[in-house]
Amino acid sequence: MFSFNDILQKIEQEIAQLQFTYPPKSLYEPIEYTLALGGKRIRPALTLMACNLYNEEIEAAIKPALGLEVFHNFTLLHDDLMDEADKRRNKPTVHKVWNANTAILSGDAMLIAAYQLIGETQPESLKEILNLFTITALEICGGQQYDMEFESRSDVTEEEYIEMIRLKTAVLLACALKMGAIVAHAPQADADALYQFGINIGLAFQLQDDLLDVYGDPATFGKNIGGDILCNKKTFMLINAFRLASEQQKEILNQWINQETFNPAEKITAVTSIYNELHLKELSEKKIQDYYDQAMKNLASLSIPKERLNILKEVCERLMNRQS
Amino acid sequence: MFSFNDILQKIEQEIAQLQFTYPPKSLYEPIEYTLALGGKRIRPALTLMACNLYNEEIEAAIKPALGLEVFHNFTLLHDDLMDEADKRRNKPTVHKVWNANTAILSGDAMLIAAYQLIGETQPESLKEILNLFTITALEICGGQQYDMEFESRSDVTEEEYIEMIRLKTAVLLACALKMGAIVAHAPQADADALYQFGINIGLAFQLQDDLLDVYGDPATFGKNIGGDILCNKKTFMLINAFRLASEQQKEILNQWINQETFNPAEKITAVTSIYNELHLKELSEKKIQDYYDQAMKNLASLSIPKERLNILKEVCERLMNRQS
Repeated sequence: MFSFNDILQKIEQEIAQLQFTYPPKSLYEPIEYTLALGGKRIRPALTLMACNLYNEEIEAAIKPALGLEVFHNFTLLHDDLMDEADKRRNKPTVHKVWNANTAILSGDAMLIAAYQLIGETQPESLKEILNLFTITALEICGGQQYDMEFESRSDVTEEEYIEMIRLKTAVLLACALKMGAIVAHAPQADADALYQFGINIGLAFQLQDDLLDVYGDPATFGKNIGGDILCNKKTFMLINAFRLASEQQKEILNQWINQETFNPAEKITAVTSIYNELHLKELSEKKIQDYYDQAMKNLASLSIPKERLNILKEVCERLMNRQS
Repeated sequence: MFSFNDILQKIEQEIAQLQFTYPPKSLYEPIEYTLALGGKRIRPALTLMACNLYNEEIEAAIKPALGLEVFHNFTLLHDDLMDEADKRRNKPTVHKVWNANTAILSGDAMLIAAYQLIGETQPESLKEILNLFTITALEICGGQQYDMEFESRSDVTEEEYIEMIRLKTAVLLACALKMGAIVAHAPQADADALYQFGINIGLAFQLQDDLLDVYGDPATFGKNIGGDILCNKKTFMLINAFRLASEQQKEILNQWINQETFNPAEKITAVTSIYNELHLKELSEKKIQDYYDQAMKNLASLSIPKERLNILKEVCERLMNRQS
């Protein structure tokens, strides 16, 4: 079996070798810029690891894995434009370096380039991989649509929030894992269990990210602490805060949410203190643990020797115990 | 064989039955709106007609044909946003009815939906159809990129312009025809000749459109006469005007191009009168005829009985003799 580091190294090599040869070059510069920003490469790594659970060879998984990484970076490119984000991985976003039109058009080309890589999947798996990818891609657009719609709604439920993050984040991890299983000709039940594992670990991961946004260590968390609080994002925390708050706490929350000008540090402190009073950290940790436990059960159900699963468990722990 | 009207009717039926079932519905409303705006449906018609040249059955061509129509409408949706166009087929554009973010995201979903339909091609042709579609889609992005870049350049050559319209317009017609041939298992030489036919007829068609923008009948031309002149679009006409103009004519052209405020009717009259002096109508008509003749040669080279080609010829004539 390949180690996690072998796999990451392989992915970086392959990404560096990607060639976008159709003219004009100016269309592909933003694509190369986006891919060179780095990132954890977790999605292609999951595809290669899932394949490697069943097959010592991982060559068949490389093209679809790269397709997913290109697709993921395409979603970041267009999402950053829609969210008017100035920075991505501490570098200016594509619409800042170039302009909005370039971000739209190069993003489109990037989505097509993702399909080009997916299209290079071995013929006997092509149809299944293509279907899975297309459904996943539509689901992710749906997740982004919900995310944008939730901004102007005040009645988002926990269930709706979980469905949004399932679509926006979890399905791509699930798809990545299942793709690896498919190209390795794993049993159908295993492919489905790996998909469910991806959903559960994806939900746990996103809820952890929301938690760290409030309670993370500013020194190691990639973004500024309190970002979600400042923009009134309807996270698991805020939704449950409203559900559990006393009338007085609700009033304080509403005041901060509706206030157009405020001292950011004061708002973060005030909202966090209500979260503390309502024990939302513990509630959140419990929910994360539930999804994590489910994910481990999904892994345990696979038809392969338990020791082969260590690499996936290790990666999950790395992702979940991270302070950043 | 099916008549052109049979084919158009079939396409409209199929488009009306397209279902976008993934939530949220709000993501797909702009897609349904765009597809319902109508249009000539020329691309899917070409796919079905090309298939019908070789096969009495056209069922196998329907999904890829619909994929091309959805793709074409996706490009219009994103191009209208990039060009800040307010109207499309006399209706407000998607970013006007909704907003820019909706246009970006629904456009993305529409591109994925196009791939979903392409992915439903019969298995034995899937890989070839998918490759052709992906290369074509990247070429079209390249054409749009050139088109946007040409706006800020004053040294665009005729050759560059022809290459831009080849990429932006002609390759999709060529792809549509070749797809029909592929799913009908036509001989490779025929599939290639139909592709070339599509390129030549596409170039003729776009040059005709440029010509009508200056010399068309305002009563029947879909857009306002002189639109290209008003926005200094580097068309075949303007590029050749600069190539052939005397120093004095160049000076007049440059004055109109660089003038920020002007009377539109005056500008159109002045530029058109230089086009008249330089006989650009005739030069343009000659170029169109050359491409048209080439296209007819491509058709004549096909391995099928000549009488089966009448429907394609008829459609070309309809497209080319149009005053609108």
